[in-house]
Amino acid sequence: MSTSVTVLAGGVGGARLAHGFALAASSPSENELALTCVVNVGDDTERHGLHVSPDLDTVMYTLAGLNDEERGWGLTGESYATLAQLERLGEDTWFTLGDKDLATHVVRTARLRAGEPLSTVTARLAAALGIDARLLPVTDDRVRTLVSTPSGTLAFQEYFVRRQHADAVLGLTFEGVDAAGPAPGVLDAVSDAALLVVAPSNPFLSVEPVLAVPGVREALRSSRARRVAVSPIVGGRAIKGPAAQILETLGHDVSALGVARLYTGLVDVMVIDTADAALAAPIEDLGFEVLVTDTIMGGPAGRERLARELLRPGGPHR
Amino acid sequence: MSTSVTVLAGGVGGARLAHGFALAASSPSENELALTCVVNVGDDTERHGLHVSPDLDTVMYTLAGLNDEERGWGLTGESYATLAQLERLGEDTWFTLGDKDLATHVVRTARLRAGEPLSTVTARLAAALGIDARLLPVTDDRVRTLVSTPSGTLAFQEYFVRRQHADAVLGLTFEGVDAAGPAPGVLDAVSDAALLVVAPSNPFLSVEPVLAVPGVREALRSSRARRVAVSPIVGGRAIKGPAAQILETLGHDVSALGVARLYTGLVDVMVIDTADAALAAPIEDLGFEVLVTDTIMGGPAGRERLARELLRPGGPHR
Repeated sequence: MSTSVTVLAGGVGGARLAHGFALAASSPSENELALTCVVNVGDDTERHGLHVSPDLDTVMYTLAGLNDEERGWGLTGESYATLAQLERLGEDTWFTLGDKDLATHVVRTARLRAGEPLSTVTARLAAALGIDARLLPVTDDRVRTLVSTPSGTLAFQEYFVRRQHADAVLGLTFEGVDAAGPAPGVLDAVSDAALLVVAPSNPFLSVEPVLAVPGVREALRSSRARRVAVSPIVGGRAIKGPAAQILETLGHDVSALGVARLYTGLVDVMVIDTADAALAAPIEDLGFEVLVTDTIMGGPAGRERLARELLRPGGPHR
Repeated sequence: MSTSVTVLAGGVGGARLAHGFALAASSPSENELALTCVVNVGDDTERHGLHVSPDLDTVMYTLAGLNDEERGWGLTGESYATLAQLERLGEDTWFTLGDKDLATHVVRTARLRAGEPLSTVTARLAAALGIDARLLPVTDDRVRTLVSTPSGTLAFQEYFVRRQHADAVLGLTFEGVDAAGPAPGVLDAVSDAALLVVAPSNPFLSVEPVLAVPGVREALRSSRARRVAVSPIVGGRAIKGPAAQILETLGHDVSALGVARLYTGLVDVMVIDTADAALAAPIEDLGFEVLVTDTIMGGPAGRERLARELLRPGGPHR
């Protein structure tokens, strides 16, 4: 029997867990596993006239086994000859783009300009890289995350890369989201999955702009799937990125419990790290099942182990 | 007193002679030399959604001292990481684009898409590369050279690069040229120059699409400049490229004399190589002054020497 798994993903955390499922899917015991990743596009940006989709690319490169594991983003074995020349030509090069990575943006941009929707472009790129999983941008429409800070409203990459997420986040808006619609296949992937996983991605910057696309949150609420969220906060700290600071400035508990409160009514199971075992009881009190396990996915083995744990017959359990 | 020199140029031949003038201009004795290059855009193309201007780039890179001298085109010290990845992504990569070169096309494309005319983009790129000369595309409008061959009509780069100019050329058309206008500064550069040089570029593929832009041929005919053309045919052969074959299939003499006939009424002086000294008399009979000299510009020294010869007080003479 085929098991359909859908992962709602941002960048690194989502990419790693999705990779775990892909690795599990490639083993004989799970050869009926069909993986779909629904990915945030709120951090998409235009650099040097090229359309860059950082989260889609992180998931795509990771699933293709081409991700630079040390940095967490971009391709392995990169060079930067074009970027150096762009700088010489007077371009602002604070957003690092490798030579190989640029090929993705060049192709994507050309096809978008030719009228292809982002979902079609993404499927073609993923196929070219030999990816079996289905990779879906949450929307083909233009959604852009804007970050309110004490220094004013910043475009997402301005906040995240250029200013290295040092500004306090006072609020987030997803420009264009009200007029956006889910990309083809997104709602079905959320509704019809056997297992739906909210990846350990930033709840505000990665997960919320996925859920904010009209129809997605409702599909998640009413999904027939077993719905699982993996906390990106472990021991009161984010595994990567500014999730902890944002939880704090927005008035939430900087903990897996704080994350669980955000996902109340949306998922059935909270997966928290063994370091946070003491939070299992209060999270259960919110109405969740809780799975306490090692959630720090280092290399491929750790990712696959976590994915398999979520796939266990009967689903994840305490 | 300032001497204004305008070079009508295609790719390599034009680039080398323009470089000669630029080198002469940088010496104390010629520090009042103001160089303008008016460059063919008929071989412009779009690759992977990027606007590529091969002739403009050859002139620009050569003037900047960055041209790959061995190949004759592209930048020195190139790498091809993006191209290899484009191929992996399923793109057709017969048109070689280096990583550094790509920066030019990325910036040009972004600025054109933002509404900047090609002449403005070109000026900015040239300035960024430290070029003192004025580099002008002959037009800001879209002109595309189409090549009629026994195999049908081919886009220029299809003929030139992909099929390595192996097809017989039955005719040439410059799509869009009737509706095109000269870029700002072009007509003045042709009319008001003290010395106007038709570079040793292909008369059909490089010079004609410059002259075909409405107003340019007339400006050349009526220019106050001393008008000089350097033959690209030496000893019955083209120094580079398919000029000889094209002269032949179109029914012209494959010689400096055949070239001179094409330029009758357009220039005052034909510059031919010492190898063709015997053609001086018949070319004079056509009404030209003739300068017989070494026209094979190898390295920078040869280019500067030829430029200085054309600049000599009283202008070039036999």
